[in-house]
Amino acid sequence: MQRLVSYNYKGQRQWGVLTADGTSIYPALDLEETYFIPLGETMEDFIESGEEGLLNLAHALEMNEKDKAIEPVALKDVRLEAPFYPRRNVLCVGKNYQAHVKEFDQNANAKNPVHPIFFTKATTSVIGPEEEIDSHPATTKEVDYEGELGVIIGKRCCNVAEEDAMKYVYGYTIINDVTARDLQKTHLQWFRGKSLDTFCPMGPTVMVGDWPMPFTIYTKVNGHLRQEGSTTDLIFSIPKLIATLSDGMTLLPGDVIATGTPQGVGMGFNPPKFLKKGDVVEITIDPIGTLKNTVK
Amino acid sequence: MQRLVSYNYKGQRQWGVLTADGTSIYPALDLEETYFIPLGETMEDFIESGEEGLLNLAHALEMNEKDKAIEPVALKDVRLEAPFYPRRNVLCVGKNYQAHVKEFDQNANAKNPVHPIFFTKATTSVIGPEEEIDSHPATTKEVDYEGELGVIIGKRCCNVAEEDAMKYVYGYTIINDVTARDLQKTHLQWFRGKSLDTFCPMGPTVMVGDWPMPFTIYTKVNGHLRQEGSTTDLIFSIPKLIATLSDGMTLLPGDVIATGTPQGVGMGFNPPKFLKKGDVVEITIDPIGTLKNTVK
Repeated sequence: MQRLVSYNYKGQRQWGVLTADGTSIYPALDLEETYFIPLGETMEDFIESGEEGLLNLAHALEMNEKDKAIEPVALKDVRLEAPFYPRRNVLCVGKNYQAHVKEFDQNANAKNPVHPIFFTKATTSVIGPEEEIDSHPATTKEVDYEGELGVIIGKRCCNVAEEDAMKYVYGYTIINDVTARDLQKTHLQWFRGKSLDTFCPMGPTVMVGDWPMPFTIYTKVNGHLRQEGSTTDLIFSIPKLIATLSDGMTLLPGDVIATGTPQGVGMGFNPPKFLKKGDVVEITIDPIGTLKNTVK
Repeated sequence: MQRLVSYNYKGQRQWGVLTADGTSIYPALDLEETYFIPLGETMEDFIESGEEGLLNLAHALEMNEKDKAIEPVALKDVRLEAPFYPRRNVLCVGKNYQAHVKEFDQNANAKNPVHPIFFTKATTSVIGPEEEIDSHPATTKEVDYEGELGVIIGKRCCNVAEEDAMKYVYGYTIINDVTARDLQKTHLQWFRGKSLDTFCPMGPTVMVGDWPMPFTIYTKVNGHLRQEGSTTDLIFSIPKLIATLSDGMTLLPGDVIATGTPQGVGMGFNPPKFLKKGDVVEITIDPIGTLKNTVK
């Protein structure tokens, strides 16, 4: 398992690999230049290079394990950014945890959807783990958080069978599917309420390689636990989501699927607990990390 | 007014400008090389270059008007392709013509939406004017056409006032917002039913410069007129759509907004007239042209 990050160091956007203890970064550029192994200038390029890139990275890290030629950069000396910028809209799934279906519909007897509900978030809504969520006070009064596991597609694919779907998963990240609940309702289709600028915090890492499953998602607001959910409780599993989405629609390397949010969003409380200026939202999925953003 | 096209000529994708009579093309590359005026390698690049690009193009065409140095390529010798590939999902508006609202809801008293309904189509659904619409028989039984005017954004913008909105319009094209009606219903949010591969025919031209308004949209299936609608009947006007979409969400050069479809889609008939293999859909908006695609 490796965790990839993009970061700003001395004014330059770069990418690299977290050290095992998570306190520093091996810059991809240094790995490339030291061991003459091509890795790609950006994480976007690296993801496009698929399995070959991952093998190259493993090889470079192995060489560095032996000769320790590369000095890692301390995490405290950089500013983490969105790990990569999806080239097209982030793919999202609504109502994918049973308890959330009930709170969303405000009905304890609400039924699970029969088919997955897909919508998208605009690319311009993506921000990194050290950026602020804009509360857009002139546009919405009901900004809400949704902690979610993001699945990253690694290979172009279409009409994938459920049993083959995991072959197309490149890795995982964390998504905060920030939502303007009022716009979500008044515009009927969800795109607008989901796509305001800064409404898609993403990161802090992209986890690749062997990973422990299932994942547990924890969301805290100002230190108080609001959401706790396991991917074992997904109504539509990750393979099912990939099989359904790719049925007639080609998926591309770097596509991100936000898999839905567990119970505990702000709109589920009575009265609702919407986000306000100064609130801090932290979404943790181990070992991907914690995606922490302040509301401005 | 100029009409830009992308096309395949001798195996190469190129772009150029239709001659006034619409029978041939001045290749942008020839204009660039003959008059030493930069135009951009692709239409995507050209759109990004905004007003400067348009001025350069006007200048080059004016010089050619005088010296006739460039031999246009006959339209019959090329294969027209999608004029450009939007970098992110195509933005779409649902229920934006009153008569279509009634047929969609199958209720003569159906009310107009209070706010525009926005959803998106995947980039992978875009095809050109000489490609075929896949009927995806294993995935859907209800493929329907929707003839629409596509508005192309020319400049990055956010929070645009309605009265300023037209400054951000780069040009126009035609979109067939092909829809799997069964998937549109069963998945609740419309993205999936709108995004199957080949479900977004676009073209044949991008019309820039001074244009005659309003536009009339005609859709024929196998030669029979099915849709006829004027942009004067839009529930939400083009400036209103741009103002609403950009309220809190940044729009980018090359974003396309499909503005909604008039009455006369296949689902509005009793029994419905869905598309089947061999059907030919022609959408005409003068002077943009006719977007003609066969169903396979």
